[in-house]
Amino acid sequence: MSNRIAAFRADGTTRYGVVTDEGLIDLTDVAGYADLQAVVVDGALEKVIALAEGRAPTFASDEVEFLIPIARPEKILCVGVNFPDRNAEYKDGSAQPKHMSLFPRFPRSFTGHGQPLIRPPENHTLDYEGEVVVVIGKGGRRIAAGDAYDHIAALTIANEGTIRDWVRHAKFNVTQGKNWDNSGAIGPWLVPFTDPAQLDDARIVTRVNGEVRQDDVLANMMFPIREEIAYISTFTTLVPGDVIITGTPTGAGARFDPPKYLVPGDVVEVEVNGIGTLTNTVADE
Amino acid sequence: MSNRIAAFRADGTTRYGVVTDEGLIDLTDVAGYADLQAVVVDGALEKVIALAEGRAPTFASDEVEFLIPIARPEKILCVGVNFPDRNAEYKDGSAQPKHMSLFPRFPRSFTGHGQPLIRPPENHTLDYEGEVVVVIGKGGRRIAAGDAYDHIAALTIANEGTIRDWVRHAKFNVTQGKNWDNSGAIGPWLVPFTDPAQLDDARIVTRVNGEVRQDDVLANMMFPIREEIAYISTFTTLVPGDVIITGTPTGAGARFDPPKYLVPGDVVEVEVNGIGTLTNTVADE
Repeated sequence: MSNRIAAFRADGTTRYGVVTDEGLIDLTDVAGYADLQAVVVDGALEKVIALAEGRAPTFASDEVEFLIPIARPEKILCVGVNFPDRNAEYKDGSAQPKHMSLFPRFPRSFTGHGQPLIRPPENHTLDYEGEVVVVIGKGGRRIAAGDAYDHIAALTIANEGTIRDWVRHAKFNVTQGKNWDNSGAIGPWLVPFTDPAQLDDARIVTRVNGEVRQDDVLANMMFPIREEIAYISTFTTLVPGDVIITGTPTGAGARFDPPKYLVPGDVVEVEVNGIGTLTNTVADE
Repeated sequence: MSNRIAAFRADGTTRYGVVTDEGLIDLTDVAGYADLQAVVVDGALEKVIALAEGRAPTFASDEVEFLIPIARPEKILCVGVNFPDRNAEYKDGSAQPKHMSLFPRFPRSFTGHGQPLIRPPENHTLDYEGEVVVVIGKGGRRIAAGDAYDHIAALTIANEGTIRDWVRHAKFNVTQGKNWDNSGAIGPWLVPFTDPAQLDDARIVTRVNGEVRQDDVLANMMFPIREEIAYISTFTTLVPGDVIITGTPTGAGARFDPPKYLVPGDVVEVEVNGIGTLTNTVADE
């Protein structure tokens, strides 16, 4: 049985269902939740996935438009600079920071699997960042690192697409480089988090037109996901459906000399073992 | 007729209504919108306020708990360092930056008028920042500065409370110092924006226990509100209900030597002519 559950648009409506090699098994009416976010908030991910058992696919993959899995989380928090060597991309030669860098993104800065990342006319330094995403299932404040995995409902993948020049507009914040409409992507689907090995043994590989640009294992993270959840929940109450984008390996386009920014027609894939491959094209607005 | 409309909690439910000197005129059932955010999104602020005409107050001010006016905006964006001399608070002696600094806050980092700002046990550098808030009524992308005022539905006030030490945790972001649960406040109410003079002639005065700490006019802003809306909407689509917290004058507690951070029992008032006075106490968690 597939453990992949996606949000998608088909026949003009927003739906969700299990993704199999033969197509998508629509569960929207069967399960009765308004959307995939509501399934997560109710803690019903595995129960809803089980409803797919014995059902035939409703839609072929190419009949649907994949959406970001959680349409409107209360919070999307991204962790910056989180793998060794990656500081070099910021060209400041600093040692490992004492605390993680954190910045929010708004949902509209992400598009779904299979959709184009949008390069705006104002600036062409569109860059990729492959990352693992955790979706919070059980809320909490001041969650101990040792308990953090108990609060994760599901995993997915992000291409935390960035307009690199605008990240450097202001001294204290990257907000405006990280929030261009449809500059990044989340998906292709959620996979329930049931075993620590899903994160502890995960590897991120980002390819542009088939060329490997990022390749690292989560075990190398400077701030492991358990610590991210502990640190974030120190100051803000995490709630079900919250999304944490956990940091990207070295190898973003800005790192190359000259930089290798994305151009229309590029195909970017972010693959994480056990989750899947998030694929997006690039298009001018 | 009062032009003040507040979100509040009374009799165990979330309500909204017009605030008069004699009390609050509850309009929740009369107007039929789910909450004050829905009124703004529907562009019905003035129409709903007019429904108060001829009605007697439903609740005395001390019978209600004021809430933040927009419970769950898609976006809350704050502008950093935005008045002359304020760079000095960051002790870097830099000249006026070319671009404004921007950072998001989550709604749960704000409490309502009359509620205590919460000082957490982890860190005691709780600081105040008085600011004018604009609420977007008409959405848009790439809004010209000259048209920006047409997109504002209402004004309110923020105490953009900050855990100052945590603002400096990470090099590229202030996120974790700006998002402690209930560390700031928005309110006391919304006032419809109907005349450019409401902003152009506005003055912010912040007092702590009656002592003036911040006092400046919006006309001194380095990045005027028109430019804020133009710049922000370059990268993200603004939607009705979005909240922009437009920047604080010089004089935050961190600026003093030694710093004057807030302590339990303090009373902080942020007054803006034409809007009102946002008052909060301070309490330990």
